[in-house]
Amino acid sequence: MKFNKHLKNINNYEAGKPIELVVREFGIKEDEVIKLASNENPNGVSKKALQALNKSINFANLYPDDSMFELKNSLSKKYNILDKNIIIGSGSDQIIEFIIHAKTNQNQGILVSKTTFAMYEIYAKHSDTKIFKTPSGIHNLNEFTKIYQENKDKISVIFLCVPNNPLGECLDAKDVYEFIKNTDEDTLIVIDGAYNEFAAFKDENKKINPKIISEFKNAIYLGTFSKLYGLGGMRVGYGIANENIISNLAKLRAPFNITTPSLAAAIAVLEDEDYIYHSLNNNLIEMKKFEEFAVKNGIKFIPSYTNFITFVLEKQDSTQICNSLLKKGIILRDLKSYNMNAIRITIGLKKQNEIVLKHLKELL
Amino acid sequence: MKFNKHLKNINNYEAGKPIELVVREFGIKEDEVIKLASNENPNGVSKKALQALNKSINFANLYPDDSMFELKNSLSKKYNILDKNIIIGSGSDQIIEFIIHAKTNQNQGILVSKTTFAMYEIYAKHSDTKIFKTPSGIHNLNEFTKIYQENKDKISVIFLCVPNNPLGECLDAKDVYEFIKNTDEDTLIVIDGAYNEFAAFKDENKKINPKIISEFKNAIYLGTFSKLYGLGGMRVGYGIANENIISNLAKLRAPFNITTPSLAAAIAVLEDEDYIYHSLNNNLIEMKKFEEFAVKNGIKFIPSYTNFITFVLEKQDSTQICNSLLKKGIILRDLKSYNMNAIRITIGLKKQNEIVLKHLKELL
Repeated sequence: MKFNKHLKNINNYEAGKPIELVVREFGIKEDEVIKLASNENPNGVSKKALQALNKSINFANLYPDDSMFELKNSLSKKYNILDKNIIIGSGSDQIIEFIIHAKTNQNQGILVSKTTFAMYEIYAKHSDTKIFKTPSGIHNLNEFTKIYQENKDKISVIFLCVPNNPLGECLDAKDVYEFIKNTDEDTLIVIDGAYNEFAAFKDENKKINPKIISEFKNAIYLGTFSKLYGLGGMRVGYGIANENIISNLAKLRAPFNITTPSLAAAIAVLEDEDYIYHSLNNNLIEMKKFEEFAVKNGIKFIPSYTNFITFVLEKQDSTQICNSLLKKGIILRDLKSYNMNAIRITIGLKKQNEIVLKHLKELL
Repeated sequence: MKFNKHLKNINNYEAGKPIELVVREFGIKEDEVIKLASNENPNGVSKKALQALNKSINFANLYPDDSMFELKNSLSKKYNILDKNIIIGSGSDQIIEFIIHAKTNQNQGILVSKTTFAMYEIYAKHSDTKIFKTPSGIHNLNEFTKIYQENKDKISVIFLCVPNNPLGECLDAKDVYEFIKNTDEDTLIVIDGAYNEFAAFKDENKKINPKIISEFKNAIYLGTFSKLYGLGGMRVGYGIANENIISNLAKLRAPFNITTPSLAAAIAVLEDEDYIYHSLNNNLIEMKKFEEFAVKNGIKFIPSYTNFITFVLEKQDSTQICNSLLKKGIILRDLKSYNMNAIRITIGLKKQNEIVLKHLKELL
């Protein structure tokens, strides 16, 4: 059986290895595995979210409220916007998919930084569209501008990952707004803020205001409940933009794209201020230990505005190091699939980090 | 801002109204609302699934196992197939989306029955492809064959909904297999078995064997956990086909398309034989009461092989009837969006059905 030709060009996203796999393959006990590979919140599930989940699972037989009235209501209050400025996706991932299907085609592609979230490129390949990349891995807005100006008729979407995954660097908010102002009304600028709460906590200059984004004619802000909010397993993300953009993307949203418990958990965690503060603060304190370790041991790294740090290796091979750690029950993220000899480490709890750094010290 | 032109042709799926809406708009107490609009399992969540959910929500911060190793393992045992014959979707819905993106294009469209599950057509519009329909609402394989033979070069996917939603009729399995045999290797025949367990329980001749489907070069079986298995709110469906088809569709599956608790619940409910038998049996017993009511009151209906029954109205207007019932806290499904003056009623619990029939008697 034949399939559409462009499927041949698609390589699936390489997901971080799950705990179950390490349990299965290396016989390590589940509660002894340390997974710092997927930038999940190491503080577990928020208490308020857990209470909401506990209640909502009794209604798992019922389809969710497809209007997502209550979650949109919570988000609109948080960001001082209207319901019609919001679209909810199964992770912000799914909104990237809507954007690419809605805006790109065989003649109009996307522009991204050389090293950034892999799903931009993967979804672009789903749509068989062109992919332009800047020469630098970290975001360089001059390079973005140059390539955009030279290929304006071939670029309909630009992705800025603020801060950037998997490198960790972060553009200033004012430069992002300025960049959007200098683009054409018909080019959609996607500000992926999956990790922006971490950046804003470290440095106010990095804080993107979704309301400001929604006031542009051609920009959309993406947020997620998978990182700071500790609901990676529940798959909820959101897009914030003007009504024209939202209503067009909504045409590509299938009904019931979010589970019933996911909606309940997302609403609840937004109110769990203790959990949110504790998560941000733990991250900032623990991040410093990784930076100190890197400096002390002569390991290259990019100062990170996220909940992970990326060590760029020079002597050792990242895949070998990750495999050695895997056998010890430690899951980190090898960045070979990003064409880098580097390891991305999620900032974990104090105790987890100590174990990881101890092992890294032996290996690096 | 401009979007791809074909978005203009897309109308979103009209979802059944949620209980929350009736509570909000008509001030009716949540536990007094009777929702028989979305073919959910009225018996609540299976005990085994609930136990699994209770445990898994503690890991809601962790991304799911993207290989879906355990769920595939359970399904492969149930159907006597291999893991590589299975793809998991966020509802079988999402697999319909993969199929359409993988197989159709502007020149190669789909063939469906005139009145069938709306998402086939909606996803086809996402891909800006042609939609061929049989003249009859209920599935008529002679009509399918005729249109297919006349337009073979323009049809790459045929959807058979067995049994059919929203009408309720069901093809015999042997006729389905025979139909597939007489199609070209390059036309994908989709056997949507979302309600097939109900049909098989009523009449063995309707039972589609997914293993047989997977042995064809050009067919795929779709199943769901949303109906019989009572997990509509958890969004899990599956496709079963040969490895070539599965591996190609898998290229379009985004990572983490199923939530962590959803995977746990789906695995657990497959083992809850009491819940499954009770659900099937209640449905068969209660369905008879709706049929008797219809016969007694001169209401047209199609004998149903599903967990719902469709009353075709002649004198009254279906929208008016549904709106009257809504104010009383009863949610049924008006089929106007399917161009029918008809009401689709999910078979509920004995007590719910008695109340619904009492109100219908007053109105019809």
